[in-house]
Amino acid sequence: MTSKTFTDQLVVDSLQLWCDNVVRIGKIHSEGGDVAATAAQILSDNYDYDKGKVLFKPTLTFGLQTFRSTKEGALSYFIGGNPEFPDDKGFKLKPWVKVWFNKLDYVLHGDLAIVQCNVHFVGGDDSHIFVNKSFVFKICDDGRVRIVLHQSSLPFHPQAPQ
Amino acid sequence: MTSKTFTDQLVVDSLQLWCDNVVRIGKIHSEGGDVAATAAQILSDNYDYDKGKVLFKPTLTFGLQTFRSTKEGALSYFIGGNPEFPDDKGFKLKPWVKVWFNKLDYVLHGDLAIVQCNVHFVGGDDSHIFVNKSFVFKICDDGRVRIVLHQSSLPFHPQAPQ
Amino acid sequence: MTSKTFTDQLVVDSLQLWCDNVVRIGKIHSEGGDVAATAAQILSDNYDYDKGKVLFKPTLTFGLQTFRSTKEGALSYFIGGNPEFPDDKGFKLKPWVKVWFNKLDYVLHGDLAIVQCNVHFVGGDDSHIFVNKSFVFKICDDGRVRIVLHQSSLPFHPQAPQ
Amino acid sequence: MTSKTFTDQLVVDSLQLWCDNVVRIGKIHSEGGDVAATAAQILSDNYDYDKGKVLFKPTLTFGLQTFRSTKEGALSYFIGGNPEFPDDKGFKLKPWVKVWFNKLDYVLHGDLAIVQCNVHFVGGDDSHIFVNKSFVFKICDDGRVRIVLHQSSLPFHPQAPQ
Repeated sequence: MTSKTFTDQLVVDSLQLWCDNVVRIGKIHSEGGDVAATAAQILSDNYDYDKGKVLFKPTLTFGLQTFRSTKEGALSYFIGGNPEFPDDKGFKLKPWVKVWFNKLDYVLHGDLAIVQCNVHFVGGDDSHIFVNKSFVFKICDDGRVRIVLHQSSLPFHPQAPQ
Repeated sequence: MTSKTFTDQLVVDSLQLWCDNVVRIGKIHSEGGDVAATAAQILSDNYDYDKGKVLFKPTLTFGLQTFRSTKEGALSYFIGGNPEFPDDKGFKLKPWVKVWFNKLDYVLHGDLAIVQCNVHFVGGDDSHIFVNKSFVFKICDDGRVRIVLHQSSLPFHPQAPQ
Repeated sequence: MTSKTFTDQLVVDSLQLWCDNVVRIGKIHSEGGDVAATAAQILSDNYDYDKGKVLFKPTLTFGLQTFRSTKEGALSYFIGGNPEFPDDKGFKLKPWVKVWFNKLDYVLHGDLAIVQCNVHFVGGDDSHIFVNKSFVFKICDDGRVRIVLHQSSLPFHPQAPQ
Repeated sequence: MTSKTFTDQLVVDSLQLWCDNVVRIGKIHSEGGDVAATAAQILSDNYDYDKGKVLFKPTLTFGLQTFRSTKEGALSYFIGGNPEFPDDKGFKLKPWVKVWFNKLDYVLHGDLAIVQCNVHFVGGDDSHIFVNKSFVFKICDDGRVRIVLHQSSLPFHPQAPQ
């Protein structure tokens, strides 16, 4: 285990990088670039799939494919096109042109940061969604911060009274 | 910090206790017992509000009261009746008579367990819901396991094609 | 007629076996086993088709094929694939991974148990249904308990006021 | 236990009486008669509530009041007006002017008849419903036939293909 210690600044930087990467994938896709290579690189650099284990519940997954414990399953959610995950449309392709977090709260615990926040997405078509998120970030042996847990869920909408 | 190490068995036990406590609160409520005292005790015994910090996104919260960073806010969600949280109906009062987890996956990390799973609730009226959950459990200095992070969200339901 | 007398324990055991057999068929189907042989064996062991008569109204049958008075019709409902029953999809194949009964009430009458209860089914995809059921169980000459009557119907859902 | 033996003729007579009694209650109600007295008499004469136990799942009940194990609960379903059963509208008051059974099948077993059939109801307004039913009838010590089990459920309606 690393002796590195998570800091407040690292929390903010890690979340900002996550947001920036969503915009980046959409931009590459819009410009006809190699979105699969970029998304796979992000999964290696920012998620702990290669050397560890990742608990990942993306926003729009359901049923038997709710949780994505493999890098392949996460990549499919990001960019779609995998026949083994027929419901994945490629969430990060839209493009989302502005992505940011708010309502941030967290606990630092050694080499981990345990985080909750909302993340907002504005599309090129001016549509807007936001989601409730939990993250656990870890400083890995190579000094990079990677995601160990990520849950993203649409907010609860109460029914109108009847 | 404790030198205790989380184990597989502790993960299962901690989740089972969480489930059992939901049933317990409903049963006490049905029998006219002191549900406020029980719920407060559970928050002290099983959540880290008293000596630490808890990140908590309950299933049915929304808007400005989505995240419950205080013990008072968590208690209100459990049993309702707090005018500062007017949308809280007391989720744990229903009663829920059968509660269990499945699709469990987790990462052990020193004194922490980082967990995702589904939890199912069946009511005394035979209704059923299930939720997608993330937990971070910690072994505290007194040897008890307490929750540091808890997100609970209803599953995503895709729209039927139109 | 047998002189055996039905007991409370036999009621619970017979219902539990019924529930376990639903899970068992789904598991065998998931693993590519011989589900037709298993389902046929269950119909011989637990329903009185071979030597007696069975009154059977399964959950999802309708029209001219509502009642299944033959073993062939019951088998088709369980596992599908019979062109004479084109609406049967094989209810027990789903798989259902957790099945249990509640709201049990019954009358013992000599070698018979006359039973009503709800039965709940949770699928591998976390979906849930429950049904209202009536059973008449009989202790047969070989000492086995078999079903003589079985009605299973979806609960009534009142319309919301308009 | 009686030594009386159920017969084919008794099955038909018992069902016909059940149907006739539905029409009778509606007629008394339309004419301003004492429907509560009549319905209570029918429950004493034709259901085994007074000296035995009855398993009863009426057509339109749901939730915590699905099963009616008491004479009071059955009476409420028939004629409504009981504040402890607020969803009961009085099924037998409508009036139903023509009620009959078809698709009859049964097993005779000593002093019992175990029965499945459909029952059709046509209202004074020319509306029509039919239900799937299970009955267990018993010849009681006084020689009368009474209902020990009665499940009535609306038929399953398959969804249109999507």
